[in-house]
Amino acid sequence: MEVLMGVAKAGLKPSGREDLLVVYLPKACEASFVFTRNHFKAAPVVYSSEVWRRNRRVRALVINSGNANCGTGERGLEDARLMALEAAKTLKLKPEEVLVFSTGVIGRYLPRESVLRAVREACLELKPLDLKKASEVISTTDRFPKFDFTRMGELETYGFAKGAGMIHPSMATMLAFVFTNARLPFSALRELHLEVTEKTFNSITVDGCTSTNDAFGVISLGEVETDAERVRFELFKVSESLAKQIVRDGEGATRVIKVRVLSASSEEKARAVAQAVATSLLVKVAVFGKDPNWGRIAAAAGSTPYPIDPLKMRILIGEHLLYDGRPVDQNLEPARRYMLENSEVVITVELNEGEGSWVYYSSDIGYDYVKLNAEYTT
Amino acid sequence: MEVLMGVAKAGLKPSGREDLLVVYLPKACEASFVFTRNHFKAAPVVYSSEVWRRNRRVRALVINSGNANCGTGERGLEDARLMALEAAKTLKLKPEEVLVFSTGVIGRYLPRESVLRAVREACLELKPLDLKKASEVISTTDRFPKFDFTRMGELETYGFAKGAGMIHPSMATMLAFVFTNARLPFSALRELHLEVTEKTFNSITVDGCTSTNDAFGVISLGEVETDAERVRFELFKVSESLAKQIVRDGEGATRVIKVRVLSASSEEKARAVAQAVATSLLVKVAVFGKDPNWGRIAAAAGSTPYPIDPLKMRILIGEHLLYDGRPVDQNLEPARRYMLENSEVVITVELNEGEGSWVYYSSDIGYDYVKLNAEYTT
Repeated sequence: MEVLMGVAKAGLKPSGREDLLVVYLPKACEASFVFTRNHFKAAPVVYSSEVWRRNRRVRALVINSGNANCGTGERGLEDARLMALEAAKTLKLKPEEVLVFSTGVIGRYLPRESVLRAVREACLELKPLDLKKASEVISTTDRFPKFDFTRMGELETYGFAKGAGMIHPSMATMLAFVFTNARLPFSALRELHLEVTEKTFNSITVDGCTSTNDAFGVISLGEVETDAERVRFELFKVSESLAKQIVRDGEGATRVIKVRVLSASSEEKARAVAQAVATSLLVKVAVFGKDPNWGRIAAAAGSTPYPIDPLKMRILIGEHLLYDGRPVDQNLEPARRYMLENSEVVITVELNEGEGSWVYYSSDIGYDYVKLNAEYTT
Repeated sequence: MEVLMGVAKAGLKPSGREDLLVVYLPKACEASFVFTRNHFKAAPVVYSSEVWRRNRRVRALVINSGNANCGTGERGLEDARLMALEAAKTLKLKPEEVLVFSTGVIGRYLPRESVLRAVREACLELKPLDLKKASEVISTTDRFPKFDFTRMGELETYGFAKGAGMIHPSMATMLAFVFTNARLPFSALRELHLEVTEKTFNSITVDGCTSTNDAFGVISLGEVETDAERVRFELFKVSESLAKQIVRDGEGATRVIKVRVLSASSEEKARAVAQAVATSLLVKVAVFGKDPNWGRIAAAAGSTPYPIDPLKMRILIGEHLLYDGRPVDQNLEPARRYMLENSEVVITVELNEGEGSWVYYSSDIGYDYVKLNAEYTT
């Protein structure tokens, strides 16, 4: 079964590029979605989460970029609903089979006429799904398109995403859509999806800011019989790849930071400590400065509600052990060189308490983050 | 009763300036202290919090800047203890009457000999407490000294502080010491102190990073009989003044941001929302760019665990209403001008639910924050 797409211009991007995407599924597919937990939810999040919760099956996704349709009151909700209705009418679907997503600037009304016209246009020119193109159409401040594809025997898993700033669980100014051709009952799909979400899109941060428009969906095309374990593996691979691409594109970022917390007394604690280190502005700026500043890592690790024992903790940057319950008397030059020479900087915090571990991805923050966000206008 | 101080050089500051301060109280005074809740506590925090908890009365404070004595293992604990013992010996006090504080770079051992010599020197040259000088001696990256003094009839309240980066509840790379000549039983002093702490030093943020060395103490000199209400008022005034001075000195900051959350259903909720807005990197960078970006304020307000109703919320920057359940159709130029022309930018979020309110102070973040923190070395 081939997934199709159509694109059009609604005039929402300053660049004048394509900004409206319709994804069309030839038959109704089981779908699992998660949405931002921000309470200042954009209109399409309010609309689509309700529709999805009732129906759980989709035939089409309508996505615009350049305008988040957020903070737009009753009129925004009506705009989101009309986008779905317009697609349903043009594609001859039931309205509840269509979900709507938006991403872009907060607080501006959508130009209703041109958006609905673009929805119609996109629905009338369907072609096979082009992952790169799909990502480009929904991108905003992204520097590169985000997509991935895997095949394991008959099992195909692929997806596309957008996101660069306002990235933080849960979740990010990000949209991600992953497709699997596996046939799965909804309950199994849902369980896999939630597990993968926690370890991928809910374990990345760019600036600690939780967005208003996020959504991540997994859609089962239902063609291949296989066991859930294989689907989980592939789904995790593609989702992690998309999540890491978002971090790599973190606004102004020069490094991906991989924070590993090991040997914590529980997985929850490992996750909290990893998030604290990954989110710490001082750690991110230190990585930007290629400064092996383990003191800031230690301070971040200690800042969660979970107690830690400074005398038992160890901190490594790459392979370089810098703290071992006390400062390790060594030249910091090799660690600095490692930070200079690698695009992914691995920070490891060992608590030496138990078996809990977690991995969190983050990006460094430098002058360009300030530049991009001080000048990105309302 | 005159509070005395002595200063000396232990060679801990790259500038070579005075870096060791001893504050001497002619008699044992009731004192209330709060310390960082970071679990990666510096050695002097571990030492002084234990000593203070047992004794609750002080005769002397020993404070060094330039080195945090943090992450320094057993040797660091011994160094902190020796600093107290040296002061006690020289001043002929009981060791448990002396508290020790450090601030500066994390992860380096103190040079024991020169620090103990400096402690001795400072103890032998006591002069009347000079608030400005005291702040200067304990400062690290501070751009200006932080102190204040009030007098209401006989009641005198005064203090000094340091702090500029790694500022976040609870608390900050900050030290603050406030003195009142009021006579108060310990229980009353403690209650006032904790209340004032929550509304001042625990309601400021510069970079969201919780430090390892923070301490804030209130010391009652016990000379004047007065009612607790008056003491509370003065204590709040001096503490808020010191807290705001720290925010104003936020590394690279160009604006103080005052976040007021009004008409929340509870004070806890107001506080959580105020903290989220004050901490939001995107909000801070927008203020740096003088961009009245209410969308980021709304997104931050919605990011706490507390539900908010976007259709009831209002957002003002200064006197300029920008969001009222929907975008307010207006020219953003006046709000931008307000941000350009005022050194304190007031952001007001009204939830229109109840009576809860909270005020939080923050600073903007710009290029100089990145510069200072990418280049401040381990």
